[in-house]
Amino acid sequence: MANKLVEIITIGDEIINGQIVDSNSAWIASFLNRSGFEVNKITSVPDQSEAILQSIDSAFSNAGIVLLTGGLGPTKDDITKHCLCTYFKTKLVFNQAVYDNMTEMFNKRGLWTINSFNRSQAEVPEACTVIINRKGTAPLSWFEKEGKILVSMPGVPLEMMWSMEKEIMPRLLNKVQSQAIIQRYLWVKGYPEAVLAEFIADWEDDLPPELKLAYLPQRSVMLLRLTAKNSDEANLNNLLNSNIEQLKTLLGEAVFAEGVKSLEEALGQVLIKKRLRLALAESCTGGALGARLTRAPGSSAYFLGSIVSYANEIKQDLLAVPEIMLQNKGAVSKEVVEAMAEGVRIKLKSDIGIAISGIAGPEGGSKEKPVGTVFIALADNDQCLCRKFEFQLDRTGNIEQAVHQALILLLDYLYL
Amino acid sequence: MANKLVEIITIGDEIINGQIVDSNSAWIASFLNRSGFEVNKITSVPDQSEAILQSIDSAFSNAGIVLLTGGLGPTKDDITKHCLCTYFKTKLVFNQAVYDNMTEMFNKRGLWTINSFNRSQAEVPEACTVIINRKGTAPLSWFEKEGKILVSMPGVPLEMMWSMEKEIMPRLLNKVQSQAIIQRYLWVKGYPEAVLAEFIADWEDDLPPELKLAYLPQRSVMLLRLTAKNSDEANLNNLLNSNIEQLKTLLGEAVFAEGVKSLEEALGQVLIKKRLRLALAESCTGGALGARLTRAPGSSAYFLGSIVSYANEIKQDLLAVPEIMLQNKGAVSKEVVEAMAEGVRIKLKSDIGIAISGIAGPEGGSKEKPVGTVFIALADNDQCLCRKFEFQLDRTGNIEQAVHQALILLLDYLYL
Repeated sequence: MANKLVEIITIGDEIINGQIVDSNSAWIASFLNRSGFEVNKITSVPDQSEAILQSIDSAFSNAGIVLLTGGLGPTKDDITKHCLCTYFKTKLVFNQAVYDNMTEMFNKRGLWTINSFNRSQAEVPEACTVIINRKGTAPLSWFEKEGKILVSMPGVPLEMMWSMEKEIMPRLLNKVQSQAIIQRYLWVKGYPEAVLAEFIADWEDDLPPELKLAYLPQRSVMLLRLTAKNSDEANLNNLLNSNIEQLKTLLGEAVFAEGVKSLEEALGQVLIKKRLRLALAESCTGGALGARLTRAPGSSAYFLGSIVSYANEIKQDLLAVPEIMLQNKGAVSKEVVEAMAEGVRIKLKSDIGIAISGIAGPEGGSKEKPVGTVFIALADNDQCLCRKFEFQLDRTGNIEQAVHQALILLLDYLYL
Repeated sequence: MANKLVEIITIGDEIINGQIVDSNSAWIASFLNRSGFEVNKITSVPDQSEAILQSIDSAFSNAGIVLLTGGLGPTKDDITKHCLCTYFKTKLVFNQAVYDNMTEMFNKRGLWTINSFNRSQAEVPEACTVIINRKGTAPLSWFEKEGKILVSMPGVPLEMMWSMEKEIMPRLLNKVQSQAIIQRYLWVKGYPEAVLAEFIADWEDDLPPELKLAYLPQRSVMLLRLTAKNSDEANLNNLLNSNIEQLKTLLGEAVFAEGVKSLEEALGQVLIKKRLRLALAESCTGGALGARLTRAPGSSAYFLGSIVSYANEIKQDLLAVPEIMLQNKGAVSKEVVEAMAEGVRIKLKSDIGIAISGIAGPEGGSKEKPVGTVFIALADNDQCLCRKFEFQLDRTGNIEQAVHQALILLLDYLYL
């Protein structure tokens, strides 16, 4: 029986040169965690046989389960299965079931006939169990060796997710005795990391060995994660509950949310508790703040919607920002962002309006307002708060920080 | 002089268990690439000394430059610098300059005094060059050993980016002779991957050894990347130009954009060429489509803005969707999403309106409209296209796919 430690290897030049962010690994790790599997390492390597072989060898020596994604396309730069043949000392053979699945896919899409490049996707390592990919043309390969498991799957996110959920996890659960991993989250405000650590040091020192505490600072607030690992799930839950209760008693009002991993979910809990509804006016962030807030399930309870006023005419027409103010102060100014926050609050009939206006870059900066200058405002029925930032990052970084700082402004508003 | 191969190690339980996506690595890789450094491997490990030491050892044996992020906080779960002391056989010593910087940071923020946990952040490995972190309290450590370089930096994105740009890259460029890496991009429509590969096989076979072609399929279109590596930059540019010209001649009208990496940038080139302006009405995506489009620098040339109508009243009030239609057909229906697309086009005075309405989940599904059901519509002055999807993914996946399919609908509209 394979041990339950997992290593993930993601293969592709596009990951290694930073063209895409490897979000597959996080998805897989989180999915495995929920079923009690623990990831020990994540490695990303280019489409180069030496690097791929070395990473497989290293993973196989540490982990009981190795999951590979990517490098299964029909073209010359995709070499994963050739590497697997080398590693498992086997050869490629034609598989009729894979070919039939491919034919079906092609017929559904209706446009092209299968050529020799496609046909090569039906060639699979002889020594593996082949699993048909019902969402694409590249099959999965399942290898077992010396009680360990290696699975190669496609890197296309939709196909990867389908493979993990429908094909890989059910087989893993059959093969491997997984241990329970339970995690609890507490959100704490008002303490810098080191002060909090000092304040709860005695409690932390007394934690039983099955429990592990992590500090996950989110700018001005702290996310505490308590992880428990063991084979006895009921016992773990009791242990966690009693220690969490002790911690909550210790921290009192400083705990403002629990049970959720993201700041937007934590804020959602507070907004629901306070019965407040939110509307947004976004300019340079283009909708990213709304997208972040609505990542939280159930966000429709407090999020009404946004007006993304990328063009100035929309700031005037829909948010009632006076034309003369835009002319005199500029779209990126305290006055305009406050008018936007107030404008969207009234237009969308919400309790709170939040607005962002800034210069994300790379163009559009000036000496007075360099790239990275962002104004963020929050308006309610009585007041309007406004903060100015100069992030000095690239476009993506400036937008990310603007979204994050808007959440922090909301948090401060709710608790200051 | 160190060789220019880089390995990146990101440290943190939150990466390994999938709580956060490791976007630092992609940012670093892309930043290094632009300066001619090549990343050979990215590894993510938990806050465990054995895993950290093993990954450092492995990286140091392969690469000339090893960059570490994370694990530098003041609390007990952060152990990176202890591991570095073990690896480099040195000990922690108190550094006054780091402490002074910390004091300054604390004074600026104005709230707390430094305690023993913070003070421990001023303890640095004796055998390294310490670099002050002007954006936070955890310093950078720069080690050199046997002609190789290892740098440990904070994992907080803002601090990491600042460290790479202001402190690490200037020193690396001083120490290491980097080789030129140039990449060119072509966007091709109308060919499935394997058909395209067959069509350009002769051209690809004739490529000189310095050039490498990669196929990066983006659903219904293909992104081709041609990478050139060598020490002679002028020669590489000539080589790339002549081969790209040959390929463009071969593919003719099928090339619809070039020089950009993302689908939103490629679409932006087409919209500018066709002088079309775009407005969005987003429901279940909460603003994510607008956020995606505005990732492209210069998107204000064709993107006017959006109305994010999460609540039904906003669909009525701002998008003029008839109340009776919402009642009879439901917010997630062909009729409503078409009315949204047409409504936003008129309200924001754009050439094209795109609307998305769906059930992202986990709640809100029904037998007729299960979670993952999404309608996407595109309206212009003459017509309205609508597509229905059932993604069957989790909330994040459903939203991501909805955004992607909206871009594909726009692409198809522009070229069908």
